[in-house]
Amino acid sequence: MSNELIQIGNPDRIQNFIKKIRGKKPLFICVIGNTETGKISGISAAGANPEITDFTPAADMEYLHFNKCKSIKGVPITPDGIPTPALITKAALDLGDIPYMVVVGGAKILPKTPYIDLGGSYGTDISSGNAVKNSKDVFEKARLFGENISKVANYLVIGESIAGGTTTALSVLLALGYDASNKISSSLPNNPLELKLNIINEGFKKKNVKFGDFKNQPFKAIEYFGDPMQPACAGIVVGAVKRIPIILAGGTQMAAIVALIKLIDNNALENLAIGTTKWIIKDPQSDLLGIIKQIDQKIPILGINFNFSSMKYKGLRVYEEGIVKEGVGAGGTSIACILSTKNKINVEKLQKKIEEDYEKIIRN
Amino acid sequence: MSNELIQIGNPDRIQNFIKKIRGKKPLFICVIGNTETGKISGISAAGANPEITDFTPAADMEYLHFNKCKSIKGVPITPDGIPTPALITKAALDLGDIPYMVVVGGAKILPKTPYIDLGGSYGTDISSGNAVKNSKDVFEKARLFGENISKVANYLVIGESIAGGTTTALSVLLALGYDASNKISSSLPNNPLELKLNIINEGFKKKNVKFGDFKNQPFKAIEYFGDPMQPACAGIVVGAVKRIPIILAGGTQMAAIVALIKLIDNNALENLAIGTTKWIIKDPQSDLLGIIKQIDQKIPILGINFNFSSMKYKGLRVYEEGIVKEGVGAGGTSIACILSTKNKINVEKLQKKIEEDYEKIIRN
Repeated sequence: MSNELIQIGNPDRIQNFIKKIRGKKPLFICVIGNTETGKISGISAAGANPEITDFTPAADMEYLHFNKCKSIKGVPITPDGIPTPALITKAALDLGDIPYMVVVGGAKILPKTPYIDLGGSYGTDISSGNAVKNSKDVFEKARLFGENISKVANYLVIGESIAGGTTTALSVLLALGYDASNKISSSLPNNPLELKLNIINEGFKKKNVKFGDFKNQPFKAIEYFGDPMQPACAGIVVGAVKRIPIILAGGTQMAAIVALIKLIDNNALENLAIGTTKWIIKDPQSDLLGIIKQIDQKIPILGINFNFSSMKYKGLRVYEEGIVKEGVGAGGTSIACILSTKNKINVEKLQKKIEEDYEKIIRN
Repeated sequence: MSNELIQIGNPDRIQNFIKKIRGKKPLFICVIGNTETGKISGISAAGANPEITDFTPAADMEYLHFNKCKSIKGVPITPDGIPTPALITKAALDLGDIPYMVVVGGAKILPKTPYIDLGGSYGTDISSGNAVKNSKDVFEKARLFGENISKVANYLVIGESIAGGTTTALSVLLALGYDASNKISSSLPNNPLELKLNIINEGFKKKNVKFGDFKNQPFKAIEYFGDPMQPACAGIVVGAVKRIPIILAGGTQMAAIVALIKLIDNNALENLAIGTTKWIIKDPQSDLLGIIKQIDQKIPILGINFNFSSMKYKGLRVYEEGIVKEGVGAGGTSIACILSTKNKINVEKLQKKIEEDYEKIIRN
């Protein structure tokens, strides 16, 4: 197992976390949303072009439910034609027989699937400094949902699908006072960091806010500079984590969630881990661990050690070049699949299934 | 226990069902919706007047989540001022520490709570013969939700809140060919059966449909003469019941669900019971057992043996006169509360809590 799961952090804490969840069936919750930030040209790879980016989260959820999308033709792809990480997530859910639910934090395009509505609205461009409406209300509803679901599920894996989400994560981290500028990831092979920072600075200037000004105001950070996935995700964690362990399934976006949760309920961090992919952990252009360490030294970080370099198809092989990297809880669900099946499903079987599923998609 | 739970049906089948769920934590799912049928004057007691009736299901769900309603002042009451059965449900959920979720089949007024959206629309007056849109689509989404939740929950208790629901249940049962005209219940003390049948006949005439014409067409029965709670409720059952037992928590409305399910997936009935109240089972103006027997001889019917005659408050004592009787899964959640706590919570404790909660409501 050691080479299938990259483990970063305090070894005892990691083993303790794994012990709590190994052999148990998780519930995967994917929190989706839209922010106009994701449609700024060059900011996100989650969609072939900015116009279609709005449809990506909905289409991802449809793929999980129906093995095909309903809101768009085909599946979400990057501008270069690389398929959505939902492909990985779906393989993990199928092989692990893992149940899943969709939570909408606030969306312009709603998925044609069952979904949990929290009364949120889609987010606006963060350069406006008015990013998210009613974040406290959405958080509170999410908290209630989390509390209820924690009485039913063994543990949760919470992922996200929101185009532009690494930019809104960076702006929230900066507002909260974390040194994250050179540490945030991107779905693009070349992280458009300068563009991200320009957008963020514009919003900060408009609101006359400086680095760290919201170090005690998580909801203000979300409302000014965040995205609608964030209060929903944080609320579910705060509501559920007292009873059950939670894997936050994602890259640097989940670092922003951890930072928000720390301010809302510091005890909530005890029962939490981050589950992601090798491509995030080994990314030379970002530093998930460097952000997390500033928030909480002890949170376990697990990474699924995929190697797509021998895949039959170029669309998958290029994941090794750092395109897409993560999303839709791909890393966390893969980890949960392996652990819940006590390694009956391993990286090899997952990769085979991903290849087969990709084959079906390109044939259609 | 025998005098706390009224048991009707095959004794072995009942004991077998109880054995499967006793000591286990359920998940309560309340399916809500609106139908314009509920606003026909004199048809429903779920609301002080027809205008406010639309708000009753949303307000019920808010009461479960927040101990108070947000969409209306106070709590839903009948035209005579009798409180909603959600009061009973809430007491059972609290004492049993039972988690709950709201599913919206199709609503005009959405609750200010987390809820699962299935893309349904609110229902129109069944006298039009065009009662529900997209019932198959809502059913299919509900089925997917049910399948997922069945991998997480031990068993489900599914209730409903939809004003006018006994009328739409009757019309569906008649369209499916069940002799239900003198057997359907009502939230009113004097069942307005003639009014119900007039409305139903108007719809049947408009569509040139006769008794039993849809005996093999469950979705047509819903679309012409049903309500939006029905496809959602049926879908969850069909999706979940292969893996876990389900209590359909309600009175004669749930008989219509059983009839629909029988046509959609006959095997689904094996793992099903009806959980309701004494007031439904002993109602001289309706005959739940008489309907159920026509559909399936073997389905266990359980009834919580409340006795409100010694309650301090008239608003509760009058339940004994057959007002309200059931709704919001009051009977089923009370049964689940007693069984899940292995009788640590009993009828007496439930009644005490209901009295206390009622006191809080009238004081506010």
